[in-house]
Amino acid sequence: MGKILILYFSKDGNTQKMAKYVFEGAKQISGNDIKMLHVKDACIDDVLWCDGIALGSPTYLGTVASEMKKFWEDCLPAWQKIDGKIGCAFSSQGGWGGGAELTCQALNTILMNYGFLVFGVTDYVAHQFTTHYGAIQAGEPRLDKEIESCRRLGKRLAEWVAVYVDGRTEQHPLNENYSRHPDK
Amino acid sequence: MGKILILYFSKDGNTQKMAKYVFEGAKQISGNDIKMLHVKDACIDDVLWCDGIALGSPTYLGTVASEMKKFWEDCLPAWQKIDGKIGCAFSSQGGWGGGAELTCQALNTILMNYGFLVFGVTDYVAHQFTTHYGAIQAGEPRLDKEIESCRRLGKRLAEWVAVYVDGRTEQHPLNENYSRHPDK
Amino acid sequence: MGKILILYFSKDGNTQKMAKYVFEGAKQISGNDIKMLHVKDACIDDVLWCDGIALGSPTYLGTVASEMKKFWEDCLPAWQKIDGKIGCAFSSQGGWGGGAELTCQALNTILMNYGFLVFGVTDYVAHQFTTHYGAIQAGEPRLDKEIESCRRLGKRLAEWVAVYVDGRTEQHPLNENYSRHPDK
Amino acid sequence: MGKILILYFSKDGNTQKMAKYVFEGAKQISGNDIKMLHVKDACIDDVLWCDGIALGSPTYLGTVASEMKKFWEDCLPAWQKIDGKIGCAFSSQGGWGGGAELTCQALNTILMNYGFLVFGVTDYVAHQFTTHYGAIQAGEPRLDKEIESCRRLGKRLAEWVAVYVDGRTEQHPLNENYSRHPDK
Repeated sequence: MGKILILYFSKDGNTQKMAKYVFEGAKQISGNDIKMLHVKDACIDDVLWCDGIALGSPTYLGTVASEMKKFWEDCLPAWQKIDGKIGCAFSSQGGWGGGAELTCQALNTILMNYGFLVFGVTDYVAHQFTTHYGAIQAGEPRLDKEIESCRRLGKRLAEWVAVYVDGRTEQHPLNENYSRHPDK
Repeated sequence: MGKILILYFSKDGNTQKMAKYVFEGAKQISGNDIKMLHVKDACIDDVLWCDGIALGSPTYLGTVASEMKKFWEDCLPAWQKIDGKIGCAFSSQGGWGGGAELTCQALNTILMNYGFLVFGVTDYVAHQFTTHYGAIQAGEPRLDKEIESCRRLGKRLAEWVAVYVDGRTEQHPLNENYSRHPDK
Repeated sequence: MGKILILYFSKDGNTQKMAKYVFEGAKQISGNDIKMLHVKDACIDDVLWCDGIALGSPTYLGTVASEMKKFWEDCLPAWQKIDGKIGCAFSSQGGWGGGAELTCQALNTILMNYGFLVFGVTDYVAHQFTTHYGAIQAGEPRLDKEIESCRRLGKRLAEWVAVYVDGRTEQHPLNENYSRHPDK
Repeated sequence: MGKILILYFSKDGNTQKMAKYVFEGAKQISGNDIKMLHVKDACIDDVLWCDGIALGSPTYLGTVASEMKKFWEDCLPAWQKIDGKIGCAFSSQGGWGGGAELTCQALNTILMNYGFLVFGVTDYVAHQFTTHYGAIQAGEPRLDKEIESCRRLGKRLAEWVAVYVDGRTEQHPLNENYSRHPDK
């Protein structure tokens, strides 16, 4: 059974709302054990436990919040005990153009330091709306496409965990028949 | 008199439309000589000519179009003859979350290799809409805020050229009285 | 049987030398089919063929060479037919501090656009020498640690392909007993 | 008189040693007021005071140390009061290939959020040794070229402050006659 962790930091609640939708998306694929934690309630063992992680932080000054960064610095005793897990990222920014893509890539960089295989989502969830380096948002997710982009990230994570950890190749998105590009 | 170059590559016309608005924004500050060029019509001398540049490329696969990249590779004979100019970036992507921030930072990285001082714009041009690493867009700019974000980038470039090249310190944005954050 | 592609662009031969060592490293894990190609000799079918890729480009101006970028732009007809493969990067730069890390992350970004799961190597191959975002080099690899960093990248790629594509969990680096951090 | 701040975080002392050499380099250009501060001893007023900054952090997990990140989050009350200053970065990493370039670019990104114009150094200080996105180091600087790369960063910062803040155009590196590329 694949084990999935949605781990986030949130102060204003925007990234927390994203985390809940990522969690909902992960549940769309059955057969995984899924846990959602604020970073203040998480510890090294939670990271060691999971097979796949969705990591969320608000965008502060174009990169990861210091609280989320500190969590991973405190995990350094587990370094090189984690290799080979699967990871992805999400972030809420103050405005479009405000750095959430850069924050997702910084979160992915942190995960790569621990040996995670990181991914983005090739799907467009609506016209001109995608999640190529992780789910991003200005403020809180409100519109359907904004909510769906978070869910799709969680779903894709659950798919990769199903395929690569449990060997359930039928869950590979190339074998699925839901819309992955509404303009096509 | 400050010399400003708007240099872009565009295939579908989206980045070209952005370039025109960047050009309009640059003209809002008087006393500069401003030129707009498609990269296929530009050469090393245009780069050597300018004091400040706004560099635009579509986002293809999360980074700069190969045509724009090749232009700068072909400029290598001018390397270390360019140091100390001012630069910024803009990019049109296929969808929000599609990599335009990453492309702007890649354009800024290219400029840093030639010794440019690069900047983003701290201003919000509308609620939840900004230009922190360059102007970004999904498809073509249509909404007022999308158009204004391009113009603001060009205006800011013209301001920095006025201040730092011509010594016209009254053009410093901290001395201006237009709105730089509509939510405040 | 896992299929591995070492795909590179090289002009001066430095990145090609890295590719050969990456190839040697991949061969250290038995049971994979491994192919090495210069990008001018590769096509979409080679990308579709592989389960895992090591992608190499010289660092030109802090990012990917235009020739390598163009190859991936030309692969766009295969977009969303590739998801779920495994990828990593390597790059030769003009000097230390010259942008090879940024180039590796740009190569990883391109791969993420095609749905690859990308990774770096947590191992140190020697004192103060690592491969966290891909193998990097100034000029050509000469010293043992420089050569080994390329080999280790290829080996790790072959390990992940063995584990995740073939289900050979005994090849997981956490189950191996070679040195992964010489200072410890 | 230009005002220059060398601001750093350091735990093991490596980044602090870099800071000292950056400071020495800045002093090579006369006529500036130069201050060096550990981030724990700095406050918003120090940032407001300076015309140019060199910002240093160790590389932890491929990006900025949480202590340095938190400092800038705590500076948010000064946001949009800082625009138009000049900035650059430096970082000590655990090993070559360990993320110091990424950390420098993350530091530059933070500075861009505050409206800084950021730069790298085009110079090579020795064969295959440069500072294109800031000075980087594995561990502490020991070799001449490692020390010189820090000094060159500080010197270049002092040159840009002299040229752009004080109008002393004779300090422009294009007007200088020291070696900026030892292989040429």
